[in-house]
Amino acid sequence: MTEETLDPMDWKRVQALAHRVVDDSVAFLRDVRERPAWREMPPEVRAQIAAPLPRLPAPLEDVYAEVAETIMAYPMGNVHPRFWSWFMGASNFTGALGDFLAAVQGSNLGGGDHAAALMDRQVVDWLKEMLGFPASASGTLVSGGSMANLIGLLVARNVKAGVDIRELGVGAMPQPLRFYGSDQIHGCHRKAIEALGLGNRALSRIPTDPKYRIDIVALRAAIAEDRAAGFRPACVIANAGTVNTGAVDDLAALADLAAKEDLWLHVDGCIGALVAIAPDNSWQVAGLARANSVALDPHKWLHAPFEVGCVLVRDAAAHRGAFATAQEYLESKPRGLASGTWLHEYGLQTTRGFRALKLWMSLKEHGVEKFGRLIDQNIAQAHELSRLIQVEPELELVSPATLNIVCFRYRSEKSDPQLAKAINVEIMLRLQEQGTAVLSDTTLRGAHCLRAAIANHRTRREDLELLVREVVRLGREIGCEKQFRAKSAFAERCE
Amino acid sequence: MTEETLDPMDWKRVQALAHRVVDDSVAFLRDVRERPAWREMPPEVRAQIAAPLPRLPAPLEDVYAEVAETIMAYPMGNVHPRFWSWFMGASNFTGALGDFLAAVQGSNLGGGDHAAALMDRQVVDWLKEMLGFPASASGTLVSGGSMANLIGLLVARNVKAGVDIRELGVGAMPQPLRFYGSDQIHGCHRKAIEALGLGNRALSRIPTDPKYRIDIVALRAAIAEDRAAGFRPACVIANAGTVNTGAVDDLAALADLAAKEDLWLHVDGCIGALVAIAPDNSWQVAGLARANSVALDPHKWLHAPFEVGCVLVRDAAAHRGAFATAQEYLESKPRGLASGTWLHEYGLQTTRGFRALKLWMSLKEHGVEKFGRLIDQNIAQAHELSRLIQVEPELELVSPATLNIVCFRYRSEKSDPQLAKAINVEIMLRLQEQGTAVLSDTTLRGAHCLRAAIANHRTRREDLELLVREVVRLGREIGCEKQFRAKSAFAERCE
Ligand SMILES: Cc1ncc(COP(=O)(O)O)c(C=O)c1O
Ligand SMILES: Cc1ncc(COP(=O)(O)O)c(C=O)c1O
Repeated sequence: MTEETLDPMDWKRVQALAHRVVDDSVAFLRDVRERPAWREMPPEVRAQIAAPLPRLPAPLEDVYAEVAETIMAYPMGNVHPRFWSWFMGASNFTGALGDFLAAVQGSNLGGGDHAAALMDRQVVDWLKEMLGFPASASGTLVSGGSMANLIGLLVARNVKAGVDIRELGVGAMPQPLRFYGSDQIHGCHRKAIEALGLGNRALSRIPTDPKYRIDIVALRAAIAEDRAAGFRPACVIANAGTVNTGAVDDLAALADLAAKEDLWLHVDGCIGALVAIAPDNSWQVAGLARANSVALDPHKWLHAPFEVGCVLVRDAAAHRGAFATAQEYLESKPRGLASGTWLHEYGLQTTRGFRALKLWMSLKEHGVEKFGRLIDQNIAQAHELSRLIQVEPELELVSPATLNIVCFRYRSEKSDPQLAKAINVEIMLRLQEQGTAVLSDTTLRGAHCLRAAIANHRTRREDLELLVREVVRLGREIGCEKQFRAKSAFAERCE
Repeated sequence: MTEETLDPMDWKRVQALAHRVVDDSVAFLRDVRERPAWREMPPEVRAQIAAPLPRLPAPLEDVYAEVAETIMAYPMGNVHPRFWSWFMGASNFTGALGDFLAAVQGSNLGGGDHAAALMDRQVVDWLKEMLGFPASASGTLVSGGSMANLIGLLVARNVKAGVDIRELGVGAMPQPLRFYGSDQIHGCHRKAIEALGLGNRALSRIPTDPKYRIDIVALRAAIAEDRAAGFRPACVIANAGTVNTGAVDDLAALADLAAKEDLWLHVDGCIGALVAIAPDNSWQVAGLARANSVALDPHKWLHAPFEVGCVLVRDAAAHRGAFATAQEYLESKPRGLASGTWLHEYGLQTTRGFRALKLWMSLKEHGVEKFGRLIDQNIAQAHELSRLIQVEPELELVSPATLNIVCFRYRSEKSDPQLAKAINVEIMLRLQEQGTAVLSDTTLRGAHCLRAAIANHRTRREDLELLVREVVRLGREIGCEKQFRAKSAFAERCE
């Protein structure tokens, strides 16, 4: 009997291939600016990525060639300097080395006494320090901001349930709980509230002021009304950076209100919590450190390769108390591998990957101060983009940047919002199809607009100038095309 | 104004370092057999992994040197051929290249029209095929088995709630739901049931037969009793491989029962679902494909680097219906990046990493048939270990292997279970501290035992022989040491 293994027969050959992978990867990132920001996959590529399950082996060189041709050639584009869609980071080469080393070592961060588990705690400690959270707080690295928010809301639910909710469930609560967030909160909160068994109706959406910040007077009224109706107001979800416009709720005022009303204050800081390390803008998130829990997202503004989110919880005992269970197969031991902490007692995963390493390596390489400057740089770029839009008569600034998100539109037929949307969507699609830039769009108080979220360490001022030029050029071009021209108020420009 | 970036000033230098990382990583895995299976970190290393947040930059070479010395030198050990603790895979070099490339490309698999998103769906299709699930089923790659189980149970809860539970919550259900699993189910189910707001009490633990399989007569009785008491029996959680002993519930009988009783059948196949691809053992999981949902775990028996779990759901509409929401900032478009599927509509994450690539690359490289043979190989090794234990008079086989888990103990003073446990724990700890092998332990029907879970593509028969020899040697040695000798029935052997 001779055993099979996944290890290569010939390590030298695999080593040579891995060198090629490194060289190609360096070229991929070094030359990213020369490539299109996005491009459509041709049908052959789509067909290839639908091939059936392989039964028999293939040389690793061939496998890699296919990855290079079909996968690496058609990325989402978020590593490109002119990708400003949705809200995500732009990754970095050192972080990729971190993910590689984590996979080579292969350790499971569910817990145990080994180096990776210690580093996981160290990185959480660093993140606490970055946000001004006390050393006594707890935290855990998770798959992303959505899970970080879910865990924060779960702890809030359990603390405020008024019953042994772990044992008895939501149905046994003496009063139904109410959570509050603004009408700008991210969709993951609805998902979380539903997953937690509270029901979407338990999440009140409070109107926002003209700057898209939660209206605190309306919030206070909603809380009073709910109390009168027999609900238990449990938690305020504050935004430190909304997904639509980057608005930051008045965190200090919400902390005061939460203290007075005995509510849990959870801050969704997936976009903005890390602004706390940016010297020119940290004032924008003042009050953040007073939260009971904060979700933050190192795979956004620290540019860690996906996935790494983090939740911090001020009351470490409440955090662990929401998840820890005793398992006969995971008994702690005084020495050896099982003598470390059980990191899985702070969330919903058992097995946990080594997300910390990529973050640790790039924080060590660059120092946290540089990450702070890069956040300031993106915010300054967003302000610069706002300015470029304001001085351009064919563009309209819909929502000026507070942090790094700019909402704007090409001015077209104002009296026909459908047409205006169609033209702006068409601009966005052509920018993508040309490979020039990737924007996304959204709807603010019923009005459609284009949206640039600049969370990108490769973006330069020249990229923003190019964007403005191209939006104007495409707007004119599209406005003169048959399907739009007839209805456009600017048709006279087309001759 | 000159912009800063995380990209290196000198790509050539980083490229050279990355080559060194590759060479060291090849050596790390190639020579893993020569190193200890685990070793304790010295205090200096612990102190180093507690250093404060770095404010200023450091050369990447120095950063890597620190990683090599502190992190790579003290792994958990699961890539080692004699690591058989808990239940996890042993990673593989190709998978690590996959994680590296995924991070270099940096794409977000929340959705969109790009190659990585297509590959994510392709890999889910492959996993459906491997388990015999219909092409019409849906599925999603998640952080691991715990999240896969949670998603399966969440869909079950929503389908069986008898009310619009997404809107109204658990409190509005006409009847409290009841979920059933054996007394051997994994701890993640309790966590999931609690997170979902159902309460631990909603999860009935049904006794098991002598082979640790759910007692179906007892299950039927519990269902009838719950119905009579006004509960709504909603879901059976079947085990395809229990964590303690690898027991597989009678899946076909449970599928019949679920059909008859109108229950959702969720199979926790984190350990055993992939046995479906192992020619000699697939009969052990017959009936698996009849489940409404299955959790499986490619980072276990497909040895993908952490993290990648998967849940499959027969009713794709029910799956999506549990999570999809409309968001103004994520509107689908007819063309361009936002014209692809929204993969985040099948789970709790928004941002999703490119977990599929590592799996795709190693499935292409080796072919699925080899993975099937490797699973058979581990099961055969577990049977061989059972045999070695049975012929060794100083060892006692507590639970023979069905799949790849063997529970046993060193025979010591039987009349004193505390002493027996102490000696066996001491054996386990010294095996680790010597670096010989890593086992874990558990408690079966009140009796403590050592546990070897052989999910490792590097294990050879000689490793098992070494284990048995060393356990016996250590058992004798420990039994003769002062603190145990006085109380040991075998003290006469010590002269
Ligand atoms: C404000 C906000 N909250 C939460 C999330 C969810 O974070 P993630 O995509 O990491 O799950 C996002 C981004 O997608 C966000 O912008
Ligand atoms: C039977 C069983 N179910 C669920 C899990 C949880 O899987 P994961 O660790 O990938 O979350 C495990 C392993 O840890 C397991 O053995």
